[in-house]
Amino acid sequence: MAGLAEEIAARALRYVIDPPSEPDDVINFASPQELLTVFDATVGLSLDEEVTAESNEAIVAAVELVIKHSVHTTHPRFLNQNFAGPDAIAVVGDWLGAALNTTGATFEAAPVFTLMESAVLSKLGRIAGYLRGGDHVPTLPPGLFCPGGSTATLYALQLARHRRQPDIVRVGSSGESLTLFVSSAGHYAATKSAALLGLGTEAVIKVDSDTTGAMIPAALEAAIAGARDAGNVPFAVIGTAGTTVTSAFDDLNQLADICDAHELWLHVDGCYGGSALFSDTHRHLLRGVERSDSFVWNLHKMMGMTQQCTALLIRAPEQLAACFASNADYLFQPDKLYADYDSGDRTFQCARRIDVLKLWLAWKHHGDVGFETRVDHAVKMADYTRARIAASNGAFAAVVPGNFSNAVFAWVPAHLRPLDLDPASIGRLAPDVHAELHALPPKIKARMQSRGTAMVGFQPVAGLNTFRMLFMNPNVTTGDVDAVLDLIDEYGLAELGSS
Amino acid sequence: MAGLAEEIAARALRYVIDPPSEPDDVINFASPQELLTVFDATVGLSLDEEVTAESNEAIVAAVELVIKHSVHTTHPRFLNQNFAGPDAIAVVGDWLGAALNTTGATFEAAPVFTLMESAVLSKLGRIAGYLRGGDHVPTLPPGLFCPGGSTATLYALQLARHRRQPDIVRVGSSGESLTLFVSSAGHYAATKSAALLGLGTEAVIKVDSDTTGAMIPAALEAAIAGARDAGNVPFAVIGTAGTTVTSAFDDLNQLADICDAHELWLHVDGCYGGSALFSDTHRHLLRGVERSDSFVWNLHKMMGMTQQCTALLIRAPEQLAACFASNADYLFQPDKLYADYDSGDRTFQCARRIDVLKLWLAWKHHGDVGFETRVDHAVKMADYTRARIAASNGAFAAVVPGNFSNAVFAWVPAHLRPLDLDPASIGRLAPDVHAELHALPPKIKARMQSRGTAMVGFQPVAGLNTFRMLFMNPNVTTGDVDAVLDLIDEYGLAELGSS
Repeated sequence: MAGLAEEIAARALRYVIDPPSEPDDVINFASPQELLTVFDATVGLSLDEEVTAESNEAIVAAVELVIKHSVHTTHPRFLNQNFAGPDAIAVVGDWLGAALNTTGATFEAAPVFTLMESAVLSKLGRIAGYLRGGDHVPTLPPGLFCPGGSTATLYALQLARHRRQPDIVRVGSSGESLTLFVSSAGHYAATKSAALLGLGTEAVIKVDSDTTGAMIPAALEAAIAGARDAGNVPFAVIGTAGTTVTSAFDDLNQLADICDAHELWLHVDGCYGGSALFSDTHRHLLRGVERSDSFVWNLHKMMGMTQQCTALLIRAPEQLAACFASNADYLFQPDKLYADYDSGDRTFQCARRIDVLKLWLAWKHHGDVGFETRVDHAVKMADYTRARIAASNGAFAAVVPGNFSNAVFAWVPAHLRPLDLDPASIGRLAPDVHAELHALPPKIKARMQSRGTAMVGFQPVAGLNTFRMLFMNPNVTTGDVDAVLDLIDEYGLAELGSS
Repeated sequence: MAGLAEEIAARALRYVIDPPSEPDDVINFASPQELLTVFDATVGLSLDEEVTAESNEAIVAAVELVIKHSVHTTHPRFLNQNFAGPDAIAVVGDWLGAALNTTGATFEAAPVFTLMESAVLSKLGRIAGYLRGGDHVPTLPPGLFCPGGSTATLYALQLARHRRQPDIVRVGSSGESLTLFVSSAGHYAATKSAALLGLGTEAVIKVDSDTTGAMIPAALEAAIAGARDAGNVPFAVIGTAGTTVTSAFDDLNQLADICDAHELWLHVDGCYGGSALFSDTHRHLLRGVERSDSFVWNLHKMMGMTQQCTALLIRAPEQLAACFASNADYLFQPDKLYADYDSGDRTFQCARRIDVLKLWLAWKHHGDVGFETRVDHAVKMADYTRARIAASNGAFAAVVPGNFSNAVFAWVPAHLRPLDLDPASIGRLAPDVHAELHALPPKIKARMQSRGTAMVGFQPVAGLNTFRMLFMNPNVTTGDVDAVLDLIDEYGLAELGSS
């Protein structure tokens, strides 16, 4: 087994050190049926009635197929999602955590990682302005690591509900109609969490956002008043720091003012945009975050940590135990050594993967300056893209102005140029023009995928499919941006020619 | 950075191939303060106001400290928890997944892994008896991968509630007092989930279990009737297949009969014991699981997958979308290629780490026979331990008979031998005897930890601290069992001598 493990590890390491980087290496696209056929030549993707032990050669061949047909999120022309370009130190830090395979729930099972989590959460809490100075490795750090941003928002809303109704943990919902608020451009974690919490998706009031995607504070005020008038009980507001589509930032200070006035919990969804705090240039986007009650920050997005590395910061972490403790006496024995460091009874999960090691190693390696450079570079590439779009003589039309690390735009066929495509203008498009533009992005993207030359997301904005390029990967150059825009132009023209 | 990444990877690989295995290598125990001091000699555990980039040499030195001071869960005398002895192929499979860093939510971002998840979930579903034959890589597989067993139970209870009240996802709890049932020996995920779901911890009725830890079916019948009489609405029963402390298995057929009669959702918590299904010899312990509605199975426990690898199997997976879908149009665009394979809108999480690759690789490498051997070996070691205890002339006293992969027992000082320590007998101990016995396990364990010679869990059973040895690691030998029992005897005697 050691030989096979080494063979697989060698291929994984080669991938980290020297990932596919040719212009058509973003993906070797294959349909589900093609993938099944390709794997049948090695060990078969399916697990049949009897699974026989395969030879090492067959397993290695399968590993090579897995690599070949996976999407290469390391490639600088993978601009498809709000993660890309994993940091090599983070990847091998993740590996070391997997090798040491333990759970973060207790000091006993994870002595180093318990302290490391405390150190990192304390630092993140200080960056967010929740703490000043103080113990840098506290017994009770200001937060938790969670398996993803949605889960963190779920926990935050439970904390918010618990502050409003401390007995709900014990007696359950009274049927009182609790209501929370998020911008219409906010992440769906809000509604998914409301469903799971038993609040119901209708408990989530979608507050109007402006054309950039930022919540309109006056609309929040009106929505709160409207909810109260309808007999509902507002309890929380989710401010978004970096919306999923346009990367808009809500004005957190204005939201905090409103939350203060109405005694509402302010949760900040900074899954994507939280990393702006690493940058002197861009930190201002989160002004006011220090006034929030909770703040989720996905380090696996812009900072290149592997899936997942989510910090849920909590201003008053002493609430966690009341909300989540089980007091399981087989695990959190008070009579074992240093039990006061155990983190497991402050969260929902029992066994918990070590997500902190990779972040700690990468931070110690790159330093604050390295982290800042990564963020600044991402925004620079987005700035460059936006400038290229503005100077494209109408070939591309910006949908939102944008001020962070993504660009949302459409490709416009020559016969329709110039075309204003801000959300209000989209609403005024003639139906045939709308239909023509709407159909293009999926077709252009399918060409990218089948050729493996790039991956760029698309999604409807104001009902129109538009492109979204996301900059996360420090290896993206202006040459990559030029190339991908050229590809969109080329494939768009080819679509027009073929239709 | 490549050089440093390679240096860290080399140390991680060395750890996988040749982990610490000397008799005192289970842990190099240090207190929190000692750990902080030790790290201060390299880069420091804390992240101070300014984090400067450290040299590669300092990072490598820190990595070596991380390894040195972590608990060696690979060591055959780490018998502390229901995971141990990670499978080397699973570890490097995990590494490959981290290197390819993507999310399991969409076919677009995870083409190979989407099909692999379907293949593995389909196989697990067939093993559990949810499916027979059929498509081995279905578009809609019978389940999900989840970040841990507690989360899976949370999702299962949401599905159960949704079947009872389909509009609760939208309108929230009506305040109707929904009630669920789990044995008094069941996992705390039930109460934690009830709190999060807004049901409240009081919605969880703890049904009496017998002295082995298995639920008493007649007590379940009585509890359901009692809840109805009190005006509550029973909706789900959690059957446990392998309780945390005594590894007891509820009689799932009897539970299924009761659930059928009362139209209750039957969720099986097989986090620990589910792996008995891999063994012809032990599969009978889960007889009736095929009649359940959902079934959670942690492959990161007995099967040696790294944290985490949790399958939540669902008999009727078409319910998932109704329960969890967000229909987010930036991610689950119906107009992209093969969107019908996307799994992300059937679960709560958005981005989701690839947990399937390691399991798929390990299964293809070991085959069904290899998996069966791992399970059978674990139970054999537990059988051997139980036999040693029975033949110890009273030095050790079994607390429960046990029939799976753990042993629960006490060390009995010579002046108290022989002593019956089944739970009923524990209740009849004289207070001074109880106090003397109760104080010993934490002290004996502290000696193990400080010497690094073994790790064995302890927890109260019927109010008395008792040892729990868990067998998961295929490298444990009868010699290891002998050695650890001898250590307990030695440290127990030393405690008596020092007190």
